[in-house]
Amino acid sequence: MRIDLEYDGTDFVGWQEQAQGRTVQGELQRALRSLLQEEVTPVGSGRTDAGTHARGQVAHIQTATALPLDKVLRGLNALLPDDIAARRVITVPDAFHARYSARGKRYRYRVSTIRPALERQRVWPIYAPLDTEPMVVAARRLLGTHDFRAFCKADPEPDHYTCHIDEAEWRQQGPELVFDIEGNRFLRHMVRILVGTFVDIGRGRLSDVDFAALLQSDGQRQQAGQTAPSTGLCLLKVRYDDDDGGNSG
Amino acid sequence: MRIDLEYDGTDFVGWQEQAQGRTVQGELQRALRSLLQEEVTPVGSGRTDAGTHARGQVAHIQTATALPLDKVLRGLNALLPDDIAARRVITVPDAFHARYSARGKRYRYRVSTIRPALERQRVWPIYAPLDTEPMVVAARRLLGTHDFRAFCKADPEPDHYTCHIDEAEWRQQGPELVFDIEGNRFLRHMVRILVGTFVDIGRGRLSDVDFAALLQSDGQRQQAGQTAPSTGLCLLKVRYDDDDGGNSG
Repeated sequence: MRIDLEYDGTDFVGWQEQAQGRTVQGELQRALRSLLQEEVTPVGSGRTDAGTHARGQVAHIQTATALPLDKVLRGLNALLPDDIAARRVITVPDAFHARYSARGKRYRYRVSTIRPALERQRVWPIYAPLDTEPMVVAARRLLGTHDFRAFCKADPEPDHYTCHIDEAEWRQQGPELVFDIEGNRFLRHMVRILVGTFVDIGRGRLSDVDFAALLQSDGQRQQAGQTAPSTGLCLLKVRYDDDDGGNSG
Repeated sequence: MRIDLEYDGTDFVGWQEQAQGRTVQGELQRALRSLLQEEVTPVGSGRTDAGTHARGQVAHIQTATALPLDKVLRGLNALLPDDIAARRVITVPDAFHARYSARGKRYRYRVSTIRPALERQRVWPIYAPLDTEPMVVAARRLLGTHDFRAFCKADPEPDHYTCHIDEAEWRQQGPELVFDIEGNRFLRHMVRILVGTFVDIGRGRLSDVDFAALLQSDGQRQQAGQTAPSTGLCLLKVRYDDDDGGNSG
């Protein structure tokens, strides 16, 4: 069974169940066990950090329940806390795995150029003047296949650093600069470090030539920018081979 | 001096200073007094209820300060709590009064047809099916001058119930139904009672003919719909004769 979720990351220590603190996975597990009366353990497409949001996180569970899908959806929404909403529940083939079957992800990062009030838990406020043109140009360099060694937290160390990026775009939207990125895989903190680096480019601290060099396989983490705050980040979508992969409920 | 504000109404008991609870006016006054070292009292264009948001609330103060406007703006943003942002500070003629000089206001109300998570403090969730067409038609009836006796909380009783509405429109926006309304004046709870009544129309509980009758001067409050929750409401803008009325800072 596949479960699509939206959540507000503000009051979570992240997706992944931990020794201490409130997690999305933990809240989902509690709601599922109460609803299905089974010891199910939801598996997510990947972790999100404390403060990071999701509009389209995906989890799967193995379950023997006979409850119809629409009842599972409604039951979850009745049992989940108000900062998590179940968007869709569908049946999937047994081989479906939220993490290993994922073919890609899409993220959005929002930077605010004015002091936020209503959006303060959804954006990174940057009050220094940003020259957006070189940010737009640098983002285009991400398209295709590159080595993102310089743009990740290598803890734990990944198998490899190669990612294919299909889309990477900065656009102005009112007082916000919005960065959308889609690719086949993302390393730990990758989007946040990319955004921190783009902001350095916008502030004139890093040149496009330096940025291009960082995308070579010998780039070093310390040559890239700071890790942008987790609050500006939202997981929009997880891509699978057959996006509907089952019967909707 | 005129001050334009954005705020998240979630953690306030409303705009207006009260015996108990955190208010926007109170927080603004505290920041102003600390910045200007004067016993100023900000006057707002009108109250907003607990939970109601603002993107364009306007306040004025009488001040003898010699601080430049840009320093007042930056100082306020440094001193205000993170759920209030000062958007603009300008000088205005002595006769300017945030409430009495106001020529109109614009509000937005957001209804969500799905369970919200990220937007839960910004929308009213309605899970029952809504027939939007009669809501759109009924909203058009508001245009022009009408008696809104049936659509207000008459406590305290207003001088009169006549309001002129320039714009009133429902539109679908993804999973949301968004209502924008602009008019010369609004009575207490007027937008929220209108929205509650439109939702009754969308649910087939009230006919367009009944609604039209309520807009006559003999309409009764108990014949209109429930008061929609304050959280879905946002004050977008306050209109003045000369919108810039002074020098920007």
